[in-house]
Amino acid sequence: MGVALLSDLLTEVLIPVAAVVGIVFAMVQWLLVSKVKLSPEVESSGTGNSKNGYSDYLIEEEEGLNDHNVVVKCAEIQSAISEGATSFLFTEYQYVGIFMAVFAILIFVFLGSVEGFSMKNQPCTYNKDKTCKPALANAFFSTLSFLLGAFTSVVSGFLGMKIATYANARTTLEARKGVGKAFITAFRSGAVMGFLLAANGLLVLYISINLFKLYYGEDWEGLFEAITGYGLGGSSMALFGRVGGGIYTKAADVGADLVGKVERNIPEDDPRNPAVIADNVGDNVGDIAGMGSDLFGSYAESSCAALVVASISSFGINHELTSMLYPLLISSMGIIVCLVTTLFATDFFEIKTVKEIEPALKKQLIISTALMTVGIAIVSWIALPSTFTIFNFGVQKTVKNWELFFCVAIGLWAGLVIGFVTEYYTSNAYSPVQDVADSCRTGAATNVIFGLALGYKSVIIPIFAIAASIFVSFSFAAMYGIAVAALGMLSTIATGLAIDAYGPISDNAGGIAEMAGMSHRIRERTDALDAAGNTTAAIGKGFAIGSAALVSLALFGAFVSRAAISTVDVLTPKVFIGLLVGAMLPYWFSAMTMKSVGSAALKMVEEVRRQFNNIPGLMEGSAKPDYATCVKISTDASIKEMIPPGALVMLTPLVVGTLFGVETLSGVLAGSLVSGVQIAISASNTGGAWDNAKKYIEAGASEHARSLGPKGSDAHKAAVIGDTIGDPLKDTSGPSLNILIKLMAVESLVFAPFFATHGGILFKYL
Amino acid sequence: MGVALLSDLLTEVLIPVAAVVGIVFAMVQWLLVSKVKLSPEVESSGTGNSKNGYSDYLIEEEEGLNDHNVVVKCAEIQSAISEGATSFLFTEYQYVGIFMAVFAILIFVFLGSVEGFSMKNQPCTYNKDKTCKPALANAFFSTLSFLLGAFTSVVSGFLGMKIATYANARTTLEARKGVGKAFITAFRSGAVMGFLLAANGLLVLYISINLFKLYYGEDWEGLFEAITGYGLGGSSMALFGRVGGGIYTKAADVGADLVGKVERNIPEDDPRNPAVIADNVGDNVGDIAGMGSDLFGSYAESSCAALVVASISSFGINHELTSMLYPLLISSMGIIVCLVTTLFATDFFEIKTVKEIEPALKKQLIISTALMTVGIAIVSWIALPSTFTIFNFGVQKTVKNWELFFCVAIGLWAGLVIGFVTEYYTSNAYSPVQDVADSCRTGAATNVIFGLALGYKSVIIPIFAIAASIFVSFSFAAMYGIAVAALGMLSTIATGLAIDAYGPISDNAGGIAEMAGMSHRIRERTDALDAAGNTTAAIGKGFAIGSAALVSLALFGAFVSRAAISTVDVLTPKVFIGLLVGAMLPYWFSAMTMKSVGSAALKMVEEVRRQFNNIPGLMEGSAKPDYATCVKISTDASIKEMIPPGALVMLTPLVVGTLFGVETLSGVLAGSLVSGVQIAISASNTGGAWDNAKKYIEAGASEHARSLGPKGSDAHKAAVIGDTIGDPLKDTSGPSLNILIKLMAVESLVFAPFFATHGGILFKYL
Repeated sequence: MGVALLSDLLTEVLIPVAAVVGIVFAMVQWLLVSKVKLSPEVESSGTGNSKNGYSDYLIEEEEGLNDHNVVVKCAEIQSAISEGATSFLFTEYQYVGIFMAVFAILIFVFLGSVEGFSMKNQPCTYNKDKTCKPALANAFFSTLSFLLGAFTSVVSGFLGMKIATYANARTTLEARKGVGKAFITAFRSGAVMGFLLAANGLLVLYISINLFKLYYGEDWEGLFEAITGYGLGGSSMALFGRVGGGIYTKAADVGADLVGKVERNIPEDDPRNPAVIADNVGDNVGDIAGMGSDLFGSYAESSCAALVVASISSFGINHELTSMLYPLLISSMGIIVCLVTTLFATDFFEIKTVKEIEPALKKQLIISTALMTVGIAIVSWIALPSTFTIFNFGVQKTVKNWELFFCVAIGLWAGLVIGFVTEYYTSNAYSPVQDVADSCRTGAATNVIFGLALGYKSVIIPIFAIAASIFVSFSFAAMYGIAVAALGMLSTIATGLAIDAYGPISDNAGGIAEMAGMSHRIRERTDALDAAGNTTAAIGKGFAIGSAALVSLALFGAFVSRAAISTVDVLTPKVFIGLLVGAMLPYWFSAMTMKSVGSAALKMVEEVRRQFNNIPGLMEGSAKPDYATCVKISTDASIKEMIPPGALVMLTPLVVGTLFGVETLSGVLAGSLVSGVQIAISASNTGGAWDNAKKYIEAGASEHARSLGPKGSDAHKAAVIGDTIGDPLKDTSGPSLNILIKLMAVESLVFAPFFATHGGILFKYL
Repeated sequence: MGVALLSDLLTEVLIPVAAVVGIVFAMVQWLLVSKVKLSPEVESSGTGNSKNGYSDYLIEEEEGLNDHNVVVKCAEIQSAISEGATSFLFTEYQYVGIFMAVFAILIFVFLGSVEGFSMKNQPCTYNKDKTCKPALANAFFSTLSFLLGAFTSVVSGFLGMKIATYANARTTLEARKGVGKAFITAFRSGAVMGFLLAANGLLVLYISINLFKLYYGEDWEGLFEAITGYGLGGSSMALFGRVGGGIYTKAADVGADLVGKVERNIPEDDPRNPAVIADNVGDNVGDIAGMGSDLFGSYAESSCAALVVASISSFGINHELTSMLYPLLISSMGIIVCLVTTLFATDFFEIKTVKEIEPALKKQLIISTALMTVGIAIVSWIALPSTFTIFNFGVQKTVKNWELFFCVAIGLWAGLVIGFVTEYYTSNAYSPVQDVADSCRTGAATNVIFGLALGYKSVIIPIFAIAASIFVSFSFAAMYGIAVAALGMLSTIATGLAIDAYGPISDNAGGIAEMAGMSHRIRERTDALDAAGNTTAAIGKGFAIGSAALVSLALFGAFVSRAAISTVDVLTPKVFIGLLVGAMLPYWFSAMTMKSVGSAALKMVEEVRRQFNNIPGLMEGSAKPDYATCVKISTDASIKEMIPPGALVMLTPLVVGTLFGVETLSGVLAGSLVSGVQIAISASNTGGAWDNAKKYIEAGASEHARSLGPKGSDAHKAAVIGDTIGDPLKDTSGPSLNILIKLMAVESLVFAPFFATHGGILFKYL
């Protein structure tokens, strides 16, 4: 078998060091962003001489630098957005806090009841010769790690929102100096979020493991079973973040567009539109905080899934700490790789023209993937023994270290493939989106038909990529392989999040430019940043979905192992009905979220219309709209509407597991996974394509695009309808489905001991 | 064990008698329809005195009876539609004929190769002590039954189309006398199709079994394995009928609407619209011929699935002919029950007002279900021994006759539940469609969002109904239970098809009234018939999908049994990747069909625009449009575009089975089944709801509806966009998915011996 080259002591040092390096790097980036001053007096004198990469040879592009009013206005708008976002998140956290408390009690009671709340040590589940800690202890520590996960997720989302709202106005102001500076500001801010999230996630997990170990000692089975609560906590927070934030942002966006763009014919982000602040707040709470929580959840879950399987494999049985912490070492390496990658965007090269933006972002993906491949090879070489065994549904499977390298690497590369396919189907540089734009000639109906067809088609290659990674990693290292493949896809999460968060920040920056009445040229620069951001947002969603699929499968495998069932046979009625109903759940869930967005948008429309009709001088710009009421409508609607879909996701595993037992629950998990992935990918790509088809017509960059435009033409109106329909698809129901499939799986895993002992009451009595 | 009460001889007599009764009844209905004369001289003198239920006390409603020009015009239009439909079907059959020939050779070669084309008898697969006929014989007879199935399917679709195009103008003419007479004519014509199809399907199957038995003798295993080709033939014809017909009808419909209604502001079915004939032809080749082939396929497949499982259960082992033919006896009883049910609509009661139409159609469903429940009880009592065994993946399961009654009955009742849920979500008498209509206030975007949400939501109850039937029938009688549950759902197929075909006939009748320039009142009567028809069409699709789900599962089970695998474990990589990719296939398929409709519609739009621009006097009605070119565009597009989706469905099982083997193929079948059902139901209900939301606004029957209208209002325009998007969803991609899931399953079953012997080359060499 052999042992790992890396000593346990060094492992214990390297992981926190990497996490701290990540946090320090994030702080440095924040510091650099903060050099852009939002107060006029410093602004006019200061930045010209500033260093830190802000050299001034693009000075010829500068404009409006000395208009102090604009700076004051930007600062005002920024603080309105930041206040709106903070107040929404606090309201959301209050409700979610209550839920978390209740659910924490539920976890404790359910898991504690497994051995009848006994305080005595028990024989271990997998290794009957040894003695493990009582189920009650596992219940306690699972609850604790659940709360830790939830808390870390909240912090990740909240910090992301804070830096995003801190950076948006600064990006606008930098756009006065040129597109390159604005890009760097937006990108650095994205990086702050990416690195904070990756490093915090790693650090909290690392500390929890070490603290829990003080109690658990040699009982690694119990230790890592309890750690799974961390993933559950992260993901259940993410559920509400995604769903609540998604409803918030799209209710405001759809409502603002329907009255502003369609009825009143005023531009997007026009300050006369009462819903405009709510719309900008939405970008931060939905796309930033929601996405952050989502990816943190995936990261936490894939680590937990890998750890729980490893704990009953040779790593755990022989107490090989370094190999056991292989998933954390991969993430540590990821932080270092992403750090180097980031420098390529901010320091090694400089963006000078609009055309360079998208390639620069794409290069980030390619560089991080290439470097990380080497990183994985190094970690696999030094942290793993040359041969070891992995638990595979009751038997131990022999695995070699290079095989595990391939598992992680294929996940990483599958992510890149998904990213590029997503780009192909959602960027208006390629024919699919151009065809959709072209179909606007014959009206909104053909636009929608072509858009839906595009989304369906865009599923094909990602699914093959996911299937290939599953096959390879499963064949090499069973469920552990799948878990580390997911981790591979997420190993460059810091870079992924940086380019992802960059999008909404640029979007906000454009909004602020418009609202502050800045010149058309500045708006054009932020629009260029935003267009690239649309595609990277779609890529980010592609990653999120792909990793969610792998994570869920890994969790599903861990659940099945823990629930002590050895096969999930489709050809038994219990499993098949689970499969069928599971495949239906994403539809049920999407019906709820789509309808929520629709209803909330209708309320928003009524309010915006009311203000236009009742506030004299609003259209003329002489009176100010009442932004706060619109913010309140979005807040109330999203808080109220996030409960039913949230309940569906959280209750399904509990109800199915308790009433129908683990076989049916396995079917439900598999069904929702294979069906949900498809809807999530197609919804997000359809929405992205419609959005960019509209932008394609608006930008009019080619002969073909000009023949469809200009703004206000019939084809453009048809494109706006498509874009509006796509909003809830791509930003609410689509991305929330990731969480549906992950969360049901991790919840099943956490409750597995309970279901295995007390589940399936209905069949027991029939 | 005991034996059945019914003697084998009587069984052999009763089945063909029931089939012949069905055919005779269909002929009588045809005769009654033909009493409505399409030549003016007879018309003016004849029908007043005719009996056969055409009593004349509604004489006060009559109008325009003596306008001979109208009759001549109707006859002309009818013959144009009939010619167009016939010529399209002949073209389609030519292409499909070539495919059938190639595929027949493929079946023969693949199945013949199982034993290396040996002519020697072999030990049986399940009963190794006995000797069975050589694989080459099975190959030959499978090929033969494949061709028979394909031929019967062609005949079913073609006859349906013939009677529908025969009846449409007659319905229009009867509408002059009142809504009741028009209803009876349309309904009788639907019944002709329903009974011909049910009776032919039964008769050909019965004759084939008896003829094949002359060769097979005691080898029932081989006999019923060969018979499965009948299902494959029926379904592969249906694939092209549904896809080709679906593309035809929607290309014409969407194209006609986009220019006619949206751009030129002329009414639907206006004779000035060049695409109007193509649109009416489409109803007959898509909704009538396609639906007929589809349901015939389901019927044939569920019978075959039941027979092949029965042949290796105690029925087959002990050669109990009556019990063996239980599925055919159920269908025979179904014909008799539907015959009685039909009389309730045509003779026992009479429709006098518009309001009575929908209840009359719903009563058909309820009466046939209630009577059939008794019928199933009788058949189960006399045709089954009190106890018997059913093959259940390698073991024999003991089943009681009353358990089998429950299996069939739950399928039957699940069908009724699906029917009513579908009605609730697609009829504008209830709140879901009214909410969708209401969302048109804020434009097309909210209409689409609400419509999609409605479709997703409408999936929930049908899936629970299907899951419940699966659980009950599977628990009682394993895969045989599922097969007979599907048969139960299809047992009232004659009535189902009658009310289903009634829709397009009424739709065509309305078109003819408009084109012949008949009075507004007559058009209103046919519109009322058509509105009820929209809902029944949706119900029909619900039945088709529900039964397809059950049938596919039964075929899947039979395939697994035949391929000699005992479990399909989701937790093996081979199966899971199959599941994931299988769940993707419906999306790939829908992407193709949606895009096909879109592209064909764009071509149609261009042609219609060209004619309006280039033919002087067309808009004024002084010049005639060139209908033939539009018919040709639809024909060419549908023939060309049906090939890629057809190839996807037909090749997937062959490629997966040959390269990856039976486990992966099992995964693919399960995945496409659980994912396809959801998309099919939601697509068909979303489309139906949009159509009826539009009709709700147009009809303006309530205060609320009037507040959204009238025709041409902004809300109405938004509703028209939704309706147009729904067209390909509800009539092309949605219903075609039934066939995707069924066909892949039956194809796998037919090729199972080949896959089991030679399949999975890729894994063998890796």
